Amino acid sequence: MRLDSYAEGKWHRSQGNAKDLFNAVTGEKIAEISSDGLDFGAMANYARNTGGKHLRNMTFHERGRMLKSMALYLMERKDELYGLSYATGATRTDSWIDIEGGISTFFTYASKGRRELPDEKFYVDGDMEVVSKGGTFVGHHICVPMEGLALHINAFNFPCWGMLEKLAANFLAGMPAIVKPASLTAYLTERMVKVMIDSKILPEGALQLICGSTGDLFDHLMEQDVVTFTGSASTGQMLKSHPKIMENSIRFNMEADSLNCCILGPDVTPDHAEFRLFIKEVTREMTVKAGQKCTAIRRVIVPESQTDAVISALKESLAKITIGDPQVEGVKMGPLAGAAQVEEVAERVATLQKDCELVYGGGEFEVKGADRDKGSFFPPTLLHCKDGFAQTTVHDVEAFGPVSTVIPYKTSDDAVQLARLGKGSLVGSLFTADDNVAKDIVFGVAPYHGRLVIINDECAKESTGHGSPLPHLVHGGPGRAGGGEEMGGIRGVMHYMQRTAIQGSPSTLSKICNEWLRGAKRTSDRIHPFQKYFGELEIGESFTTHRRTITEADVVNFAGISGDYFYAHMDDIAAKDSFFEKRVAHGYFVLSAAAGLFVHPAPGPVLANYGLENLRFIEPVYPGDTIYVKLTCKQKTEKEKREDQKLQGVVHWDVEVFNQEEVMVAVYTILTLVERREES
Amino acid sequence: MRLDSYAEGKWHRSQGNAKDLFNAVTGEKIAEISSDGLDFGAMANYARNTGGKHLRNMTFHERGRMLKSMALYLMERKDELYGLSYATGATRTDSWIDIEGGISTFFTYASKGRRELPDEKFYVDGDMEVVSKGGTFVGHHICVPMEGLALHINAFNFPCWGMLEKLAANFLAGMPAIVKPASLTAYLTERMVKVMIDSKILPEGALQLICGSTGDLFDHLMEQDVVTFTGSASTGQMLKSHPKIMENSIRFNMEADSLNCCILGPDVTPDHAEFRLFIKEVTREMTVKAGQKCTAIRRVIVPESQTDAVISALKESLAKITIGDPQVEGVKMGPLAGAAQVEEVAERVATLQKDCELVYGGGEFEVKGADRDKGSFFPPTLLHCKDGFAQTTVHDVEAFGPVSTVIPYKTSDDAVQLARLGKGSLVGSLFTADDNVAKDIVFGVAPYHGRLVIINDECAKESTGHGSPLPHLVHGGPGRAGGGEEMGGIRGVMHYMQRTAIQGSPSTLSKICNEWLRGAKRTSDRIHPFQKYFGELEIGESFTTHRRTITEADVVNFAGISGDYFYAHMDDIAAKDSFFEKRVAHGYFVLSAAAGLFVHPAPGPVLANYGLENLRFIEPVYPGDTIYVKLTCKQKTEKEKREDQKLQGVVHWDVEVFNQEEVMVAVYTILTLVERREES
Repeated sequence: MRLDSYAEGKWHRSQGNAKDLFNAVTGEKIAEISSDGLDFGAMANYARNTGGKHLRNMTFHERGRMLKSMALYLMERKDELYGLSYATGATRTDSWIDIEGGISTFFTYASKGRRELPDEKFYVDGDMEVVSKGGTFVGHHICVPMEGLALHINAFNFPCWGMLEKLAANFLAGMPAIVKPASLTAYLTERMVKVMIDSKILPEGALQLICGSTGDLFDHLMEQDVVTFTGSASTGQMLKSHPKIMENSIRFNMEADSLNCCILGPDVTPDHAEFRLFIKEVTREMTVKAGQKCTAIRRVIVPESQTDAVISALKESLAKITIGDPQVEGVKMGPLAGAAQVEEVAERVATLQKDCELVYGGGEFEVKGADRDKGSFFPPTLLHCKDGFAQTTVHDVEAFGPVSTVIPYKTSDDAVQLARLGKGSLVGSLFTADDNVAKDIVFGVAPYHGRLVIINDECAKESTGHGSPLPHLVHGGPGRAGGGEEMGGIRGVMHYMQRTAIQGSPSTLSKICNEWLRGAKRTSDRIHPFQKYFGELEIGESFTTHRRTITEADVVNFAGISGDYFYAHMDDIAAKDSFFEKRVAHGYFVLSAAAGLFVHPAPGPVLANYGLENLRFIEPVYPGDTIYVKLTCKQKTEKEKREDQKLQGVVHWDVEVFNQEEVMVAVYTILTLVERREES
Repeated sequence: MRLDSYAEGKWHRSQGNAKDLFNAVTGEKIAEISSDGLDFGAMANYARNTGGKHLRNMTFHERGRMLKSMALYLMERKDELYGLSYATGATRTDSWIDIEGGISTFFTYASKGRRELPDEKFYVDGDMEVVSKGGTFVGHHICVPMEGLALHINAFNFPCWGMLEKLAANFLAGMPAIVKPASLTAYLTERMVKVMIDSKILPEGALQLICGSTGDLFDHLMEQDVVTFTGSASTGQMLKSHPKIMENSIRFNMEADSLNCCILGPDVTPDHAEFRLFIKEVTREMTVKAGQKCTAIRRVIVPESQTDAVISALKESLAKITIGDPQVEGVKMGPLAGAAQVEEVAERVATLQKDCELVYGGGEFEVKGADRDKGSFFPPTLLHCKDGFAQTTVHDVEAFGPVSTVIPYKTSDDAVQLARLGKGSLVGSLFTADDNVAKDIVFGVAPYHGRLVIINDECAKESTGHGSPLPHLVHGGPGRAGGGEEMGGIRGVMHYMQRTAIQGSPSTLSKICNEWLRGAKRTSDRIHPFQKYFGELEIGESFTTHRRTITEADVVNFAGISGDYFYAHMDDIAAKDSFFEKRVAHGYFVLSAAAGLFVHPAPGPVLANYGLENLRFIEPVYPGDTIYVKLTCKQKTEKEKREDQKLQGVVHWDVEVFNQEEVMVAVYTILTLVERREES
């Protein structure tokens, strides 16, 4: 019954004074929590020295496969988590967002990590910068894992997702984590961590769990650590200004609740599909998780002329929400997470009522299958703020429950100004059928938002909605929302890495980046590189082809076979006045002839040329010019083994085409699949 | 004599109590400084409402051209700045770094802004994310300027560069700035700002200057503002924890001094060129700006066996440094910036001497052309720390003057560990002739550094050295260095922009991004798009070509003309066992035939196809297949007018090649130059 912490590779049950935790539906005691007796300094060192070391020894692809294994393992065991999740007040749908939504962040990062990051322990960021005339001194950027720990301090509303969305990024980056869930629902996090530890999929020290307070952990934080915080602004600010955070310039990423808005476009009237979609979404956002989401809609900004229609449609829609025990058939909304939450939300509603009219909720409400007085129930509550410019409470006071306020606007610009009065939000949404309206409003409110969702009839069916952060997109917002940024695909991984500019000779930087950079040394060999297996090829290995003179016959024949009779190739008169001043060979012929020069025709390890990047035709090639190609092995990535295929790797080749004056006429990169042998 | 502030579009001379400022060489009073009487709240509003508005109405390219004009204007007037710079103690070389180095950041951002950013008021970040099965709901990211002000609090050592390197990024982003230089050398900043204001190149409100204290400005900061700070860690931490910064989650970028190291590789002995280069660089870094650089080398980490050789070479080299009035011929190092600095540096050296042996400096030294007692002179000072693991003062105490300490190491790993004891640095450098050594040491120390320079004989001549941050590369460092990041090309611009995830239908997001996104609506017209001028083309305008059946004759003929006889195209026997299972058309033939299908042969507005991006061959094309192409106008960018050219624009076309089963066989983007008419 007492929750365990997982510290230094062992489960630890505290013996000290504990806090009681209660089932949100029945009010019964469900667990006790205390972190007394944990050695926080030792946990921190264990994370850095054991977990960090193991994770840093893995490549991004290895870490990605680890995330995938864990996601699959958790999916198989999700039922026991769903069972426990009801106690937090979550319906099946709420639990799905928390549990499977959380697991899906592992899947997404598993796949992004393997597709968008190299099979290396570091990431090369951006392009090489040539910062010298002769090109012997250049710059580049690498990102390496930070060598501290990631401390995640999470909110009570998403005991699973809140942990997993952060772990996905720090694990992929190569950093270990200590997770501290909010006590209120920590029993569900504890259960999930138990499953994760049992899986033995994570390396030793990669994950530790604190059930209870963080004790003196902050005093042990160091300059290579990262802290993330999701929760109330006041707690976040207190932690962020901790002397250790300040002194060591420790990265602190904060997501605070915000007064997110949903705007009904000026073009939408009740006969538009977008009106119905809007009512459905506001209702959903108010009632999912009983409105306990940092992304929930708090401010419903509508055209003045539609205010009555919106209020009456919302009242009708909210009236259909059955409140009660989430395990009971037909219940759409469970209780809040605890009794203190009920009290706090009621207080906030009372504050809002000073400026706003209560139009739905308040007073009596029915609870299905549970004792209203024992569970932490609170009814959907809708307010109406008549003048959002005069009455500003609505932009400042957040009731963290099923509570929203309708605010009318006169013009689109007013709608934008009202949205901005929230002083920074995690998300805003807009329902409009007019893309010009969308453009204006989006640019009007973008500086104040981390995410904006524009919903119309075309995308509604597949839309993930206002309130769902996706691992592909950034989650976080400026100002009141905490100024943080999480996820956003690989961007979120970089929050756990140090970006370092590197400067030196191209050869030195090539060695460091494990990638041939222009200007770096090349090696050559009498064996054609297309005759070499993946493992035999070296970065920088180069091949210079024989030459070929491009003739007028080539140009004419190429036009015939391609069908490309562009005047610059075929019309002496027009070509004379053109850009090129005379007839020029087709660029695509130069490409084709280059391939003819560098391809090795016999069967060999090169299986296919499947792509081409960054082609630039630098100088024209005229009939009479003689070209040759320099092919250089630029980058190599092993492909994961697939049952039905030969072992393969992707090789990027730099291709430079020169003319008889040693002038580069074209440059590009080709992507080939190359066979790999077991031993390589 | 009293310095002016520039507030709300007017020069303002304070009447209140002022602080005296002195010439660092002669000790004579040079100016008075006070910001008494400024209305800081009004300045903040003026920046946001006037300057911000004007800048946000410009595109990145317009802002880039503004930076270029300003850079050219300043270059023409640099002499008066050089004249004043001597008073700060700067030599001609020191002033060149500050003045022309500063101006060059404007040139770099002017060119990067026009090359790497679109001619728009917003930036589209990364790739579209398809987050739905049917592709009707997608995600993307845009970056827009933050709508507050950028407050730059700068250090005394680079009165010009310190201002310009920050302004370049915030102006390009579209944010106005208030600059507060350190009082000690504010007279030089004031002079430069006067030149900038006189130029009338900046829009009204884009730049304001506070000479003196920031008064109550922090109390007026809001959630859309950005603060940057360069200076001591203690002041930085105090400002960073200001309640307004905390409450509003205001971005705060800090660069603090750090104990930067320079490592001599274990492979280098006095007979290597790298040894000589190392001695030269350490000497230079100790004496340029009299060592008053946040990037200066403080810890000289050398192989134990080379300690004596290094110390004796450095002593010899430092002995050649003539100290004195920087205007006097032959003087290599000027005074510190003021008397308080001399006192502080002397104190720090005394602290270091508790653990380290003084091997050069201390006591008497000669001063050329100036009065030693009146100017703020301090001699080059070298210490020797015998055991860098036992004696940790050397990793904690920074003497901000011409002071460095030699620390011996036994193994490469020890060198790495010693470097890391600095707890985070702006920059580190390594002198080695061995790229394997470079790789090991770079990855060992990278998490602790914002920038690493690896110097060998190959790059030394063109190297910009250890201490020079470049606008192309990030400047900043973790931990002790403040945890900030500036410059790094376009990365630095993003610090002044809000990144917002946007979600919706591809058509809505296309409208917002002003770029055709896959899945978005297309329009078509009976006029071939290659017959249209730049201004006539619409984003999303599409053209579907006629069809062409690919025959065996095509494959054979194409092999003949290209010379590409790869077995997969030409050898029935080998092709059967290949990836493709039978003979397949050349990918380059598919490309060529596609051009034949979409090119309009007559002279017209399309001048040239100069590039191709992101080509993927998705499915093989076999003899007998019939292909056609869908060409869609994806993106348009006006090119700046050049004297010798027709007005032009760059048009990116999305090219999709389909077969008879409507399966996409290839997809890519081509880049064309299209003629533009005056009116478009």
